[in-house]
Amino acid sequence: MFGPIDGGERYELASPTALPQAGGFLWNRRMMIQVTCRGYATAQFMQPEPAKYAHAPNLEAKTFMQPEQAYYAHHPGRFVYVKDEDTGELFSAPYEPVRAPLASFAFRAGRHDLGWTVEHLGVRVELQLGLPTDDVVELWTLKVTNLSGRPRRLSVVPYFPIGYMSWMNQSAEWRDDLGGIVASSVTPYQKVADYFKNLHLKDKTYFLCERRPDAWEACQAAFEGEGGLHRPSALQAERLAGGDARYETPAACVQYRLALGAGQAETCRFLFGPALDDAEIARLRTAYLSEAGFARAAQAYAAYIDRGRGCLRIRTPDAAFDNFVNHWLPRQVFYHGDVNRLSTDPQTRNYLQDSLGMAYIAPQVTRGALLHALGQQSANGSMPDGILLVEGAELKYINQVPHTDHCVWLPVCLQAYLDETADFALLDQSVRDTAGAELTVAERIDRAMAWLEQDRDARGLSFIAQGDWCDPMNMVGYKGRGVSGWLTVAAAHAMRLWAGICDDTGRAAASARWHAAAAALNDAANRHLWDGRWFARGITDDGVAFGVAADAEGRIYLNPQAWAMLSGAASDAQRQLMVQAIEEELETPHGVAMFAPPYSRMRDDVGRVTQKHPGSAENGAVYNHAASFYVHALYETGDGDRAFRLLRQMIPGPDAADLLQRGQLPVFIPNYYRGAHRQYPRTAGRSSQLFNTGTAAWAYRCVIEGLCGLRGDAEGLRVQPQLPTGWDGLEAEREFRGAHFRLQVRRTGVPAMQVRLDGQPLPDGRVRGIEAGREYRLEVELP
Amino acid sequence: MFGPIDGGERYELASPTALPQAGGFLWNRRMMIQVTCRGYATAQFMQPEPAKYAHAPNLEAKTFMQPEQAYYAHHPGRFVYVKDEDTGELFSAPYEPVRAPLASFAFRAGRHDLGWTVEHLGVRVELQLGLPTDDVVELWTLKVTNLSGRPRRLSVVPYFPIGYMSWMNQSAEWRDDLGGIVASSVTPYQKVADYFKNLHLKDKTYFLCERRPDAWEACQAAFEGEGGLHRPSALQAERLAGGDARYETPAACVQYRLALGAGQAETCRFLFGPALDDAEIARLRTAYLSEAGFARAAQAYAAYIDRGRGCLRIRTPDAAFDNFVNHWLPRQVFYHGDVNRLSTDPQTRNYLQDSLGMAYIAPQVTRGALLHALGQQSANGSMPDGILLVEGAELKYINQVPHTDHCVWLPVCLQAYLDETADFALLDQSVRDTAGAELTVAERIDRAMAWLEQDRDARGLSFIAQGDWCDPMNMVGYKGRGVSGWLTVAAAHAMRLWAGICDDTGRAAASARWHAAAAALNDAANRHLWDGRWFARGITDDGVAFGVAADAEGRIYLNPQAWAMLSGAASDAQRQLMVQAIEEELETPHGVAMFAPPYSRMRDDVGRVTQKHPGSAENGAVYNHAASFYVHALYETGDGDRAFRLLRQMIPGPDAADLLQRGQLPVFIPNYYRGAHRQYPRTAGRSSQLFNTGTAAWAYRCVIEGLCGLRGDAEGLRVQPQLPTGWDGLEAEREFRGAHFRLQVRRTGVPAMQVRLDGQPLPDGRVRGIEAGREYRLEVELP
Repeated sequence: MFGPIDGGERYELASPTALPQAGGFLWNRRMMIQVTCRGYATAQFMQPEPAKYAHAPNLEAKTFMQPEQAYYAHHPGRFVYVKDEDTGELFSAPYEPVRAPLASFAFRAGRHDLGWTVEHLGVRVELQLGLPTDDVVELWTLKVTNLSGRPRRLSVVPYFPIGYMSWMNQSAEWRDDLGGIVASSVTPYQKVADYFKNLHLKDKTYFLCERRPDAWEACQAAFEGEGGLHRPSALQAERLAGGDARYETPAACVQYRLALGAGQAETCRFLFGPALDDAEIARLRTAYLSEAGFARAAQAYAAYIDRGRGCLRIRTPDAAFDNFVNHWLPRQVFYHGDVNRLSTDPQTRNYLQDSLGMAYIAPQVTRGALLHALGQQSANGSMPDGILLVEGAELKYINQVPHTDHCVWLPVCLQAYLDETADFALLDQSVRDTAGAELTVAERIDRAMAWLEQDRDARGLSFIAQGDWCDPMNMVGYKGRGVSGWLTVAAAHAMRLWAGICDDTGRAAASARWHAAAAALNDAANRHLWDGRWFARGITDDGVAFGVAADAEGRIYLNPQAWAMLSGAASDAQRQLMVQAIEEELETPHGVAMFAPPYSRMRDDVGRVTQKHPGSAENGAVYNHAASFYVHALYETGDGDRAFRLLRQMIPGPDAADLLQRGQLPVFIPNYYRGAHRQYPRTAGRSSQLFNTGTAAWAYRCVIEGLCGLRGDAEGLRVQPQLPTGWDGLEAEREFRGAHFRLQVRRTGVPAMQVRLDGQPLPDGRVRGIEAGREYRLEVELP
Repeated sequence: MFGPIDGGERYELASPTALPQAGGFLWNRRMMIQVTCRGYATAQFMQPEPAKYAHAPNLEAKTFMQPEQAYYAHHPGRFVYVKDEDTGELFSAPYEPVRAPLASFAFRAGRHDLGWTVEHLGVRVELQLGLPTDDVVELWTLKVTNLSGRPRRLSVVPYFPIGYMSWMNQSAEWRDDLGGIVASSVTPYQKVADYFKNLHLKDKTYFLCERRPDAWEACQAAFEGEGGLHRPSALQAERLAGGDARYETPAACVQYRLALGAGQAETCRFLFGPALDDAEIARLRTAYLSEAGFARAAQAYAAYIDRGRGCLRIRTPDAAFDNFVNHWLPRQVFYHGDVNRLSTDPQTRNYLQDSLGMAYIAPQVTRGALLHALGQQSANGSMPDGILLVEGAELKYINQVPHTDHCVWLPVCLQAYLDETADFALLDQSVRDTAGAELTVAERIDRAMAWLEQDRDARGLSFIAQGDWCDPMNMVGYKGRGVSGWLTVAAAHAMRLWAGICDDTGRAAASARWHAAAAALNDAANRHLWDGRWFARGITDDGVAFGVAADAEGRIYLNPQAWAMLSGAASDAQRQLMVQAIEEELETPHGVAMFAPPYSRMRDDVGRVTQKHPGSAENGAVYNHAASFYVHALYETGDGDRAFRLLRQMIPGPDAADLLQRGQLPVFIPNYYRGAHRQYPRTAGRSSQLFNTGTAAWAYRCVIEGLCGLRGDAEGLRVQPQLPTGWDGLEAEREFRGAHFRLQVRRTGVPAMQVRLDGQPLPDGRVRGIEAGREYRLEVELP
């Protein structure tokens, strides 16, 4: 039904109904497209704000990407109808809108392309989607093969709905000069100033045909008629009527009337995307719409994606895990780090964590991101809620809501970068901020830590304002008094990391200062937030501690525990209590929940997190991002067995039953799986289908540094693999500071871990003096 | 196929495909619902801003009501599936989503309710929708009758999609305690302050069943399955599965498994609407969900609607016209005037014109509206772009764009009110504005006229800023220099009206001032805007006159001509040239266009009106509101024959071919019919399907004061009917100042009009000293 092919570089799904929401995603530097196996598609491009070129059938709200997107009959998609002209029989590929019970079906999610092979009525339809690296254009190849052993007369009708473009203007027509259907619109606006802003928007949508079709239709309603999408009226006639759309919903429908001998095949290519004007459409046609153009684009695109292949290859007893780590996880990390989720104002914490992931793929990107982010630091040391990436960008949505945690992520990201590169020169680099002030990176991080240090209450706990990590608990501290348990220990962790970096760079006074500040935070957490078995999530404006054992709902939150383990707030004894409580209260068959029990009602003093009450997927969900912090903390504290178990749960489909429940192919880690598995077993475990998540970076780090135990430090590489129970070994290849490391780990029953480098014992497990270009061989024996 | 029934109080449509977009609309003081004959529905309610309780399947943008709304498979609607349990045959009433070819179909748009009677497979399904007067609840009656002459086992499944409620939260389930399906959501927000604003939003949608169903389903996807809406998978089973929706798109589906003997019938009642909480749902159930409750509500609702029956009944040779004027036109006027298009910030010009219409229905509403509007006048005499109707309302959408015409509408509305009531005491009423200043109505109108007088350029022409009447030509004057030809003569007209009112009230100095000011405006218009055969539409910031003969597109605009005729700017000779030019350039088979020829490209110096370029319905459209000004001007200048011809074109369906082209039943005048009939004959004449339009008030006024010639003045009633060629007479009844007038007009070939009052000649045609409660008989003979 589903499984890896091509050595794990692709996943194949043999049914359109088994995982109906599952699909794949492609992106380039200007656009992304998420496609389901059934043919629905959601595409966005940057101009520079996210925009669409294929729309819903109604006026759609502009919003950030939503999880668990609902599909419906007229959802945008890419479809091909096939009609037997002799019998009148009809089906559509890949599956929607006709939903005929196909003779065979295969959807393939590849790293570089997406494709389908569908057979029905003795006809094979192959569809393939690729992207170029920088233009906003979908490259579609359609191949139709007559498998029936006799001559056939077929109508093959690609149908790409364009949807409701604009109430101000919309039209579409066949353009002989451009060789396709072009739909036009005007982005609606009210204020004159917006007119000038909108002048350069790509308000046209084109569907270009390499080969001229025999007929076409540009009006959605005319195509569909009374027949409906599952049996369009226009397909009852011999030929599409050649109509246009005039303030009617546009669609791109073109008809090829094919006479195919036995075994004969026809291939057509199409471009679909947005454009400013006819000249741009003509340029795209010239650049891409040919066999050679597609081939060039495919090669360039594969090269682009392969630049994100990451620094690690593994072979373990878990082949599916290997596939994911070797092919898919770095791809997801690369997507986040290279295009910043196609946002112009990523949340600061997202931007820095996505950049953290890039340390393992293209560390110079991490470096640039740190400098870019610090250039937006305020004079008081605080960081803004979002990092503006382009001229004219604005803080939108939740980035207009004050959060207090952004400074935390500077040392967290920096640590990973330095571990990977030892580029301590970065700290002395000067950064000019928007007010014109020039400070070094080290000075700026000092200031960020100082801001965190002062943004606390009299008890020494960190204020939460309207939120910290995660969709905010926006009511806890909006009056200015509420504090965050997580942020208190997260700030301590950040300061400890920074103190360590100061140590590494000879800044002894700073190191002492931040070690002491971290200790003070940890002390405050222990004094005011320790609840007997775990740390509280926070204390509200009105002095109510929450995330505590006395709460019937939202009794325990994962984040304060994970970060207390990282910050040193938790003693060994506390850690054992916490891990046990998490196992009892938060671990589920689908992963470790962010909090539990789920809320059944609104808590006015906690806020939005509880508004996501039982009807919401996010109530008590398995938030992979939070889970990934915990996995990291477990590896950091030596609990590699538990860490791997939870890490493995993040990846869809350890088995088929799990894939069915989650409804997603194992080609990315989604931002959450549904929780509340006791209350709502039907939906628990279901994937959000949203690939935007800080999880990817952390999961990759956990594999590299935790599971494989190949972490850099100021001097070189530390080797300390943590194999899960049941594995007798693993092999890994790791690129590190320009050198190539081959790692072989075996359980041999030695009393304690033994490391050999190029055959020689390495007693402390640390490789020093690494030479770029060299190959190193590491052998590790484990008890 | 379609026609009036019940003496014109209803319109019946015998096919769901002849006019697929056609339907009817109902409203009450808190909500409105527009329903198509096929069962799609768009409902809004005020809380206090417009909101929905049945949603699109995706995140829908919040916007003002759009014309020509697109329908699609998952558009909100109200449907009933009927399945023969023995044969498995399926259809749906009224028509969607199954679209079975029905044995018979009738949709009835009534003034007080909407209903369908559908027969198929030997089963009759009757559906009726009513509203109460003040609660937000749809009252649905479903009756199923076995016509087949043999016992039948049927599943009858009302399916009311609820749609994508919120990304923050959505769920739905059957509630035994409330007897229905209740869907819950949380209106999404980002900022804490919005949380408190949202606390009182009706975020629940309920579907309540008078009689407990045998099964139900609350999840859209579970109901639909792979079958699709035209053949839902859930209906293949014996019983709906009783599922809930947990962050899935909710739907209300309930199943009645009926065993009906020959001729037997079952009736079910349902409530559908939004609620804050369970208590409100329970209250609505108690108040309405019974035969008696429905009957009470229907009676109260009919009484409410009948309060808007207006002051006129006519009988003419054109029975369809009579139906419209006697039943539908005042209903549309009442809708506008009583609930202000269900907006909290109507555009000032709309608010005043909608109130103008109420002068003929409930003049005290007009009085109140004038006072309310003047209370929002600025200290400098200008009027805001919108009138705020409730505490906390804000100017939205186009009301944030500066327009310069709002003051014009004060005397225009006041004149109609005084003509109808002679309530000159209003002028001395004191009005306190938001700054606390107290001024009389007369003083305020003086100030408004003074503001218009000073807001002119050195040539004496009125500045346009970013627009005046109609969707603005927002680029003409945004730099502060461009002027409006229409507004120049409209201001003159307003001042003339106000001067006349000053005359009537002994304010001689003011009268002289405003007569002189009007003359100056008219002179300026003639000096700078007269283009040889008509007046220009304006002159841009950069000094380019437009709407002139030299323009290849947008050469002539209707409004400047109509208002120049009203203002006195046009001499008789000019008027004849203008009327002829309008006939040649603007009159079309579907009415008189607002401008012509349509634009084929953007004109940066004119603006948004041209953005509605060929793809837009509004480019060169028959804008009925503009047409109604012209009809008024024609009646005012004695061209009653032409006036009636154009007035008649506003009403859908002088004949069946016209109805088919326009796609709308004659139950309201839409805001436009598509134009560009030479360029786009396929779509020309098509109705916008939008009943929000200032046209209604003007059309009603034209019938009363123009066609019937029954206009009030300071002393009484002036009688001067203007019959169109081909009519030999008309009869009318008119309520006026508490008296009842019966008018009989006949063409007898007299040399000049002769008027008799109660049998006595009335040489000047003016009835003076009218006594409330009396009945007057007017006989008019025409040449």
